[in-house]
Amino acid sequence: MIQLGPHLTAEGTTLIKTHYTPKQAINDGSLFLMGNGYLGMRGTFMEAKKDAYAGIIVSDTWDNADGKWEELSTVMNGLFADIMWNDASVFTRPWQDFKRTLDLKTGIATREVTLDLDGTQLTVKEEKFASMADRHTLPMKITLTASRAIDLTLIQGIDADVWSLNGTHLKDVSFSEIPGGLAAEATLSNADTHVVVGMKAPLHTIVKKAHAIHSHRAVSLTPDTPVTFEQIMVVTSTNDHPNASQFVQDTLHACPSFDALKEASIQAWETIWRPFNITIEGAKDDHVALMVNTYHALIATPRHKPLPIGARGFSAQSYQGAAFWDQEIYNMPMYLYAEPEVAKNLLLYRYQTLSGAKEKAKKHGFEGAFYAWISGKTGEELCPDFFFKDVLSGRPIRNHFNLWQIHISFDVGFAVLRYVEQHQDHEFMRDYGLEMLSEISRFLASRVAYIPHRERYEIIRVQGPDEYHENVDNNAFTNYQAHYVLKETLRALEQHRDVEGAFLPTAKERTLWEDIAKRLYLPPVNADGLIEQFDGYFDLESIVPAEKVTERLQDPEEYYGYPNGITVFTQCLKQADTIQLFSIHPELFDEKVQKANYAYYEPRTLHFSSLSPTTHALVAARLGLLDEAYKHMKKALFIDLLNTNEAISGGTFIGGMHTANNGASWAVVAEGFAGVAYDHGLVMNPHLPEAWESLTLPLFLDGALRTFKITHTTITRTDDTPGRVTIQINQQTHHLEAQTSVPYTRS
Amino acid sequence: MIQLGPHLTAEGTTLIKTHYTPKQAINDGSLFLMGNGYLGMRGTFMEAKKDAYAGIIVSDTWDNADGKWEELSTVMNGLFADIMWNDASVFTRPWQDFKRTLDLKTGIATREVTLDLDGTQLTVKEEKFASMADRHTLPMKITLTASRAIDLTLIQGIDADVWSLNGTHLKDVSFSEIPGGLAAEATLSNADTHVVVGMKAPLHTIVKKAHAIHSHRAVSLTPDTPVTFEQIMVVTSTNDHPNASQFVQDTLHACPSFDALKEASIQAWETIWRPFNITIEGAKDDHVALMVNTYHALIATPRHKPLPIGARGFSAQSYQGAAFWDQEIYNMPMYLYAEPEVAKNLLLYRYQTLSGAKEKAKKHGFEGAFYAWISGKTGEELCPDFFFKDVLSGRPIRNHFNLWQIHISFDVGFAVLRYVEQHQDHEFMRDYGLEMLSEISRFLASRVAYIPHRERYEIIRVQGPDEYHENVDNNAFTNYQAHYVLKETLRALEQHRDVEGAFLPTAKERTLWEDIAKRLYLPPVNADGLIEQFDGYFDLESIVPAEKVTERLQDPEEYYGYPNGITVFTQCLKQADTIQLFSIHPELFDEKVQKANYAYYEPRTLHFSSLSPTTHALVAARLGLLDEAYKHMKKALFIDLLNTNEAISGGTFIGGMHTANNGASWAVVAEGFAGVAYDHGLVMNPHLPEAWESLTLPLFLDGALRTFKITHTTITRTDDTPGRVTIQINQQTHHLEAQTSVPYTRS
Repeated sequence: MIQLGPHLTAEGTTLIKTHYTPKQAINDGSLFLMGNGYLGMRGTFMEAKKDAYAGIIVSDTWDNADGKWEELSTVMNGLFADIMWNDASVFTRPWQDFKRTLDLKTGIATREVTLDLDGTQLTVKEEKFASMADRHTLPMKITLTASRAIDLTLIQGIDADVWSLNGTHLKDVSFSEIPGGLAAEATLSNADTHVVVGMKAPLHTIVKKAHAIHSHRAVSLTPDTPVTFEQIMVVTSTNDHPNASQFVQDTLHACPSFDALKEASIQAWETIWRPFNITIEGAKDDHVALMVNTYHALIATPRHKPLPIGARGFSAQSYQGAAFWDQEIYNMPMYLYAEPEVAKNLLLYRYQTLSGAKEKAKKHGFEGAFYAWISGKTGEELCPDFFFKDVLSGRPIRNHFNLWQIHISFDVGFAVLRYVEQHQDHEFMRDYGLEMLSEISRFLASRVAYIPHRERYEIIRVQGPDEYHENVDNNAFTNYQAHYVLKETLRALEQHRDVEGAFLPTAKERTLWEDIAKRLYLPPVNADGLIEQFDGYFDLESIVPAEKVTERLQDPEEYYGYPNGITVFTQCLKQADTIQLFSIHPELFDEKVQKANYAYYEPRTLHFSSLSPTTHALVAARLGLLDEAYKHMKKALFIDLLNTNEAISGGTFIGGMHTANNGASWAVVAEGFAGVAYDHGLVMNPHLPEAWESLTLPLFLDGALRTFKITHTTITRTDDTPGRVTIQINQQTHHLEAQTSVPYTRS
Repeated sequence: MIQLGPHLTAEGTTLIKTHYTPKQAINDGSLFLMGNGYLGMRGTFMEAKKDAYAGIIVSDTWDNADGKWEELSTVMNGLFADIMWNDASVFTRPWQDFKRTLDLKTGIATREVTLDLDGTQLTVKEEKFASMADRHTLPMKITLTASRAIDLTLIQGIDADVWSLNGTHLKDVSFSEIPGGLAAEATLSNADTHVVVGMKAPLHTIVKKAHAIHSHRAVSLTPDTPVTFEQIMVVTSTNDHPNASQFVQDTLHACPSFDALKEASIQAWETIWRPFNITIEGAKDDHVALMVNTYHALIATPRHKPLPIGARGFSAQSYQGAAFWDQEIYNMPMYLYAEPEVAKNLLLYRYQTLSGAKEKAKKHGFEGAFYAWISGKTGEELCPDFFFKDVLSGRPIRNHFNLWQIHISFDVGFAVLRYVEQHQDHEFMRDYGLEMLSEISRFLASRVAYIPHRERYEIIRVQGPDEYHENVDNNAFTNYQAHYVLKETLRALEQHRDVEGAFLPTAKERTLWEDIAKRLYLPPVNADGLIEQFDGYFDLESIVPAEKVTERLQDPEEYYGYPNGITVFTQCLKQADTIQLFSIHPELFDEKVQKANYAYYEPRTLHFSSLSPTTHALVAARLGLLDEAYKHMKKALFIDLLNTNEAISGGTFIGGMHTANNGASWAVVAEGFAGVAYDHGLVMNPHLPEAWESLTLPLFLDGALRTFKITHTTITRTDDTPGRVTIQINQQTHHLEAQTSVPYTRS
């Protein structure tokens, strides 16, 4: 048994919790989420409704119900079930011998609980999952066992009384009987989208309610004899199937048994896991915690069509089920290294939203592609102008994430370049990449200012990764990232001179782009070896450690940042910013510079974003700062397990799984501790934590999956794929056959 | 008798108030201020101390006592006097038959009050003034009359218990007897400046106290027989006289009687008034109100050496006794038209502070002259980074008046150009003007950004005259004003090619300046005939009338502006901005455009700056919008008489005389209603208010003072100076001999 947190353990690959209090329902519902990249079913129990935060969030169902927040909808719950005895739900009795599990390898969740019905012990077990083999299908099996003979009523049905974060999305919900089961249909509040849910179970007495349709079935239990009931839910929307009702009926009709569905899903899960099966020996808690994070990263990632990874996946509607820069910078690496097809799908999503990005640019007086800070289906900007509020006055605050955090465009460009470079997918570059890169460079060229006085281009009025400091100039992260993308775009255009398209730069544009690439200001390393985060940053008040600034809070829910929060006139960072630059561009600065900046910035960083720990862990691991690295990795791996982050900031609910952190945890282990990189081929400079005996890591290389086992002294190829793999270790090139080793010393 | 306000009347040129309550002491002390351009003695009474807001503010005594606000010091009060009866001040008795006066033509103030001393009626009269003939001298005469014989003690002395707004400036105050009187010396808190005050009066029993030195004199009054006592104060600082003590002693020693001093001062006042003697016939209240404003503008203006006009003159220490753009834009016109030597002196002050402006530019990474937003002696920036506070949270607010309100530099340049053009003072241009203009243009060139995308230079991140909107781009006022100055600088450089100096632009600079003059973005007149105040202004919430926005206040003392005040995301202006542009550059836009913009912007303007009404009155008068013009002129003329403005904003005391409004009131009458302008010669297109019969106005033209009497149909030269005056009326040129008339019709 591996202890992970209070009442939270693991055995093998199974997460176990033996303690339940309703107030943990929000967080446990997220942590025990079942999903498959198409939908997520919150880890609540069969009898749960809105007040227990029950919700099934389905991809591509964006809807704006409150006039402010567009978000994915929670749909009608077709796995609703309850057990009645003497006209009351048995779950209103005290829960005994409670145990819930989630098998990370198979995505199967169970709940077992025993209820005392005036002397009769009734044990209820539910087992359910979101099928990885058939993304629309959620099967459940209920097993009832009683210590004495007892008569009960089993309710199974579809319930529309689900948790919805910002307004009611489901309008005109209608319930009906269909062949073999029940159905519910609804139209989303302000869209044409129609969602349909079907439920398959043997029907008995049908009861229609305002928000539900139920089948009531009398059940007589005999002592100690388990009785089993199945219930299958199918869901889709007209965005996936124009004739959604028919699709649901057909799917339900063809649906095999729970066990057959389970077997198919287990097999699909095995395939999904294969490239991501990292084994950490010597620290079982790290191993399982990494699995938890990888599991959540995987179920948050749409594979069925180009759609974004939501910043909270399908665990909650917060962050609008939409992509941020998280997708390219935090979630992409695991796919770039282990399953490039998924990386490509995510980039196709960004290609698909190019028109939205172009419209956004135009709206603000720019050209090219200004990607949405919060990007849903179309790429139009979902980020409202006002979202936090000044809790002291109750007034809304204008934060400019949507207007000034322009690095999003360059981050997308960076991901395109990374993917093409690493997998030499020139077809992608020609079909999509060049166009995206050209429009991103065009945006940059329309966004820069040339300052005659300093004879250079500058990027004025931005917000860097450290979101507390808005309205800053020449943010080092933004400028370097923009410069990298522009320079590489020009190179790609040169390489693919035969490609034609209206998106290509005119001769005049090309001249300008080249001039910008030559004269864009890149904040230099100063005499102290430091890079200034933005112009004037070093003049701000220095508070070390940064946490001390929190003493200035007047209200715990205050927003810390722009325009007048407690950090604004200090050097306190929300999260990695210059360190973020090192994380993705280690090639630009030598180790000494990176170490000096790490030493300067880390104590000034509040780490009040879940994006901060992985970045620090990754950079520290690369630099051989193993204590720092391990500390931040631990924080990252356990963010959702210990659930230490605030669920509300500036009055806005931000709870749910930290999907970027989930994905980046993989990157910390691979790019950080294993020292994996790509530089015209695989690079590996491991810095294993002392606590680890070995790390086994699959990587997708030259079209196939290879596996490497890294100890403190050797790197061994443990896969059987024929052929040699070229790998650079400490600047030396090695050619590794399958099942061979090479010794290394830590750089 | 002319009624001006509650309990406030005028007879002839004398302001009279017959009602006194201590809580009006702040405002009445300002309104009844005595002064001479060197110092101001607040209109309080002889027995007044700190708690009655007594203060004598002396020029060139800047000191920072609280670590935040540098301000002029209030010095020891050498006109302190009190009358004791039975060991108590007679002024603690109820005041009867109170009457205070201020003669606007002579600057002489009186207070008369009768006190019942258990049946004996004692009438005390004090008469005092700040000598216009000798700026260091303040004479006072006290007359006591009793209805019955009574024995009193007259105290005369020097009192250091004076009002000081921000901290105690007077350190180590020492008191002493000197030949013929008393003296007090003090060192200012954080400067080397030493101030010395002397008092001349017959000495009797000397009493030294912690904060004062007094002479106690027994006085026996006989019934109905007035007895008179004189008291003369002299003050200077080591900034004026290195041996200040000696100077004070010498001056006191040579000092003639009260009556002789009075006669000399009256004569000096007559000379001062001569160029500003405007007569309005048909509206006596307007006439006197204009006199009140002109009086205060005159006593606020240093003439003895190049020093700034404080934004509150010497009436209070608020606004730091320092110059703002007010000086060039609001106070300068009356001098430009009526007494150019004073205008020149003010410009020499700006020349003297050029090094401060260059240092400020350098500090912020620019070149050339970035004039201080709040400019004291040296031109270093006196405006703190934080001055208002968020009254809801108590947190200081960072407002960027000192960093973003860059139009100050161009306003100075504009005044230089105006002065030289109007008085053809090419010597000034060669000796000072070219250098100032070059450094101002150099600043502009270092401050602009060239936006390749729009192929133009822009001025990014500024604060225009409407101070509630900070961090805006391409403020029309700023851009047009900057452009005008740059263009005219290039022309002046061309005209004076033989002038040499290190300040001249290099060839490279010259090319850049010419390019900026050609391609600086000037916000155009749009399809609706409107000029956008700044980029994106029209997208903000429109609230008409602007006052409605005040309903959103949570606290009456809230600051309305940046970063999160109630006006920030609305079109509500603090004060004239685009209209301000018309006020000083009517030549740039035709009447139709000006009218359309007036109609758009005026209802969106809160007029929460005393700078707003005169600008609106002036522009409206020029446009023939006489009701509008008259309404705003009335508001302007009575700001300090009715005292309707808030004394505190965002937690900061801003009370005192509105010196810019005082000066600009003259401009409203002359440039507005008389339609006076200078365009290669005198222009006059009058739009007299219906209520006025005539307006008589002196103007300094071709080296001499001329006077014009304007009625609704004719313009008459009423002076006797020989020679013709050329004048354009409705685009027709006339040559007016002395004592001749020309008819006109209103344009």
